[in-house]
Amino acid sequence: MTTPFTSLAEFRAFLAEAPGPDSAAISGAEERNGQLTKPPGALGRLEDLAIWYAGWRGDARPSLNAPQVLVFAGNHGVTARGVSAFPAEVTVQMVANFEAGGAAINQLSKAAGASMQVHALDLDRPTADFSAGPAMSEAEVVAALATGWNAVDPKADLLVTGEMGIGNTTSAAAIALALFGGEAADWTGRGTGVDDAGLALKAQVVAEGLAANPQAGEDALEALRCLGGRELAAMAGAIARARVLRIPVILDGFICTAAAATLEQAVPGALDHAVAGHLSAETAHGAVLKRLGKEPLLALNMRLGEGSGAALAINVLKGAIACHSGMATFAEAGVSDG
Amino acid sequence: MTTPFTSLAEFRAFLAEAPGPDSAAISGAEERNGQLTKPPGALGRLEDLAIWYAGWRGDARPSLNAPQVLVFAGNHGVTARGVSAFPAEVTVQMVANFEAGGAAINQLSKAAGASMQVHALDLDRPTADFSAGPAMSEAEVVAALATGWNAVDPKADLLVTGEMGIGNTTSAAAIALALFGGEAADWTGRGTGVDDAGLALKAQVVAEGLAANPQAGEDALEALRCLGGRELAAMAGAIARARVLRIPVILDGFICTAAAATLEQAVPGALDHAVAGHLSAETAHGAVLKRLGKEPLLALNMRLGEGSGAALAINVLKGAIACHSGMATFAEAGVSDG
Repeated sequence: MTTPFTSLAEFRAFLAEAPGPDSAAISGAEERNGQLTKPPGALGRLEDLAIWYAGWRGDARPSLNAPQVLVFAGNHGVTARGVSAFPAEVTVQMVANFEAGGAAINQLSKAAGASMQVHALDLDRPTADFSAGPAMSEAEVVAALATGWNAVDPKADLLVTGEMGIGNTTSAAAIALALFGGEAADWTGRGTGVDDAGLALKAQVVAEGLAANPQAGEDALEALRCLGGRELAAMAGAIARARVLRIPVILDGFICTAAAATLEQAVPGALDHAVAGHLSAETAHGAVLKRLGKEPLLALNMRLGEGSGAALAINVLKGAIACHSGMATFAEAGVSDG
Repeated sequence: MTTPFTSLAEFRAFLAEAPGPDSAAISGAEERNGQLTKPPGALGRLEDLAIWYAGWRGDARPSLNAPQVLVFAGNHGVTARGVSAFPAEVTVQMVANFEAGGAAINQLSKAAGASMQVHALDLDRPTADFSAGPAMSEAEVVAALATGWNAVDPKADLLVTGEMGIGNTTSAAAIALALFGGEAADWTGRGTGVDDAGLALKAQVVAEGLAANPQAGEDALEALRCLGGRELAAMAGAIARARVLRIPVILDGFICTAAAATLEQAVPGALDHAVAGHLSAETAHGAVLKRLGKEPLLALNMRLGEGSGAALAINVLKGAIACHSGMATFAEAGVSDG
């Protein structure tokens, strides 16, 4: 498979040229929505979701049949700083669990009728410790972006990206700090479950990361390179490819959203094809969603990653589209419309 | 089909004798939950849902294969007071739409893999205008309770009850006022969409309803009889039968929850087998849920009724159970558990 870009500048250019939604499909979907057998607005956010989806699919009466879940895994040099409650070996163990069908995301993908693939990115070659300098070279981040880009099935009609990578909430916190400013502690949470001392250390490491990589505060794709991990870059690459292909995306939790936020900061509008699947219990997720102007569909106190919250939200979107495309109009049903 | 009760007193006695959840299944589910390949608590409310469901089904590793959606329809004499934005004929028209498969609840039931049945209760014989006296005689409310009771499939492993009945948010508001006190305006919302003048009239009618039926403030099942409608009583009867059969229930919006609340007030614990599917946009729903101590699973600004919010939540519960019963344990997957 060819890689369509060989530098961050080329990647950014692809994203900047991506098409928007189909305005005729949006108009058609809005018109249909107004004729369905329900009081105006009574399906609430389901109505907005269906119209948004119709626009990106270019079909005023769309269907959702082929959702794809992509899980990317990477290892992080910053785990040497003791920022996680689990040892780094868990990343490769969990990849085996994904491949054997035993993880939460396997069950949730199946429950949503989604195909699911796992991509382990150079697990035996962790990124460099970002608290001492860039996590990745440009060649490394471009390769990871391309892994995500190439993993998207052009025939998918919905994309969810998830991740596994011990240490990656630390990476996501550092990216959020670089993109949005404030204090390291504002963006640092407990991840898989560090204690108070671990949380303080983690915030310190996050602050050191930005100090060691000042260019990350100037450019969002540099933030992804210097503070990210391979799985974060792969998620960003997949979400960018979906934007180019007009495949709608459901964002997962804190790590996925931080990775995605680098795209929106690099090219405003880059996430117009994405909705927030859920609000994670990881502390800073809500603040990142607010900066992106995204209202989560679910808020169930989940904080697992893997794409789990977004995968659970697939069925909400399916319900919205089933209503929009399957309901009778007032005229068809012979119902008085008030 | 025989009716198991012939009076409200007999109905109440059945409910009071209903069994609780299986404590061994709860313990077994809690133990299993602690061994699954995820950080402790990382699936948030999905973990609580799975354990709750396990308890009611008496199975530490349950499955959810046969959800049933029951939609009850009734007509309300109180519509003569001009409390709805839609004419009363819409009830029978929408029943035809349900039967033809064209309503939102048809699409959402199908999307959840649920069977769905509609029961129209004496649509040509509206209840009496409750602002002038009792909506139903005891024989009438018992017949409606029995319709709901008998409609539950004993082989179902989940129940959703929905409703259709022009005027029934007025009825639900009057029941909430009788059960929980306060002012009529606290419990009165816009329903299918009345304007400000309509809303003020509706609150006045609700207040008149309680004034005309003082016994409704003394006894919750009297509130159901005097202020309810046949579809509200049928929902209450179905939810009570599910309690007796240990079939878990997902509650829908304001009208369903008000009907269900009469059971909890009549017999504390009567709704232990029920979770709140969603928070409706109908103003007073959140306040009723708070009185019942139920946290909604979804909050998508829906206000359609029909069981639509609860039906959408079925897939959240299915996801919870799929994770609980399908995931590998740390030992099975060979993953280090921190």
